[in-house]
Amino acid sequence: MPKVRVNCFAISLDGYGAGPRQDLENPLGVGGEALHAWFVTTRTFQAFHGGTGGTTGVNEDFARRSMENVGAWIMGRNMFGPIRGNWPDDAWKGWWGENPPYHVPVFVLTHHARPSFEMEGGTTFHFVTGGIEEALKRAKQAAGPKDVRIGGGADTIRQYLRAGLIDELHIAISPLLLGSGEHLFSGLDLVALGYRVSEHVAAEGATHVVLVRSPAG
Amino acid sequence: MPKVRVNCFAISLDGYGAGPRQDLENPLGVGGEALHAWFVTTRTFQAFHGGTGGTTGVNEDFARRSMENVGAWIMGRNMFGPIRGNWPDDAWKGWWGENPPYHVPVFVLTHHARPSFEMEGGTTFHFVTGGIEEALKRAKQAAGPKDVRIGGGADTIRQYLRAGLIDELHIAISPLLLGSGEHLFSGLDLVALGYRVSEHVAAEGATHVVLVRSPAG
Repeated sequence: MPKVRVNCFAISLDGYGAGPRQDLENPLGVGGEALHAWFVTTRTFQAFHGGTGGTTGVNEDFARRSMENVGAWIMGRNMFGPIRGNWPDDAWKGWWGENPPYHVPVFVLTHHARPSFEMEGGTTFHFVTGGIEEALKRAKQAAGPKDVRIGGGADTIRQYLRAGLIDELHIAISPLLLGSGEHLFSGLDLVALGYRVSEHVAAEGATHVVLVRSPAG
Repeated sequence: MPKVRVNCFAISLDGYGAGPRQDLENPLGVGGEALHAWFVTTRTFQAFHGGTGGTTGVNEDFARRSMENVGAWIMGRNMFGPIRGNWPDDAWKGWWGENPPYHVPVFVLTHHARPSFEMEGGTTFHFVTGGIEEALKRAKQAAGPKDVRIGGGADTIRQYLRAGLIDELHIAISPLLLGSGEHLFSGLDLVALGYRVSEHVAAEGATHVVLVRSPAG
């Protein structure tokens, strides 16, 4: 059965998935970049961004798993770009250049319609104005037998968690405080939503936790 | 310099220091006992409760440190006992029997005055109705050159954190979800309060984190 997954979503010890005061210079908020220190050193991340080298070990194992068997992505609009409100034109094509590292259909949640477009390497961006369920339906169709990966940010993941639509959630707890910003779990009762811990592994710079949903039955 | 410390305070992955629906059968709330699985197996915990044996290793190291150089304790009333409101009489003398494991003065925060009393082994319980600052002042006097340890629960620690009065906070993140209950950090901006991570060590059944306060200056 294909799954709906979140992978490699990093949060601080105090639970924030991004720091405060996000802007172009701090797309992950002040201090937010440091959440991903464990990740950017991995072999998978380096390859994802066209590089070579990188670490192996537990962090790399989780990074590699995150890229396997993904047939479509869903992301919030802020993960796609810094533009808010109406699209001024079709010039912005994501943060990732002409050949984005997804290589599958990517569904962007937005309140503002925009035509789909295809990039090099098999990535097609679609813009979904009908909400999270429509995006998931289309992503599942596009993914076929493979999984749908929900990239982020925190608010997008929270919406899918609250709707009980995420089967598996891998978070990496980074050893730092952010103090404020976008909290991943605040106000969500994960036990009532059916989640339990299925994996818990500590590594250099991150504690990896996998939550799975086992609906009551 | 003597410190004001919290040690071995366990929270769930979703940040709760106790589970929901606390009562006599579930003094730590439903599911809350499991927060302390890493702790109850340690040599120090076993000795604290008059037993022998127990584990050594990282968990034991943190457990042992928690008991060293403590000159006085502060605790919220719910940590002292299950009685709410006025004291019906002086019969309740804590959860710990005739010889409590503290062996120093213990200051209990309460809105309801009650005379101090001494137990076997050097533990004296004092009841403080003047608030957290009065309790800390009295505890520091009693502790002399030693540290003051704030035991809990979550609400008591939150009050002291918010007031910037805790120098060092050791938390143990246990690999489980509680879903609801008493959240330790919700609504507190630990960065603005001056805290940073000074230690981060993973062990069997818990990730240990030590936060220290470095006031801006």
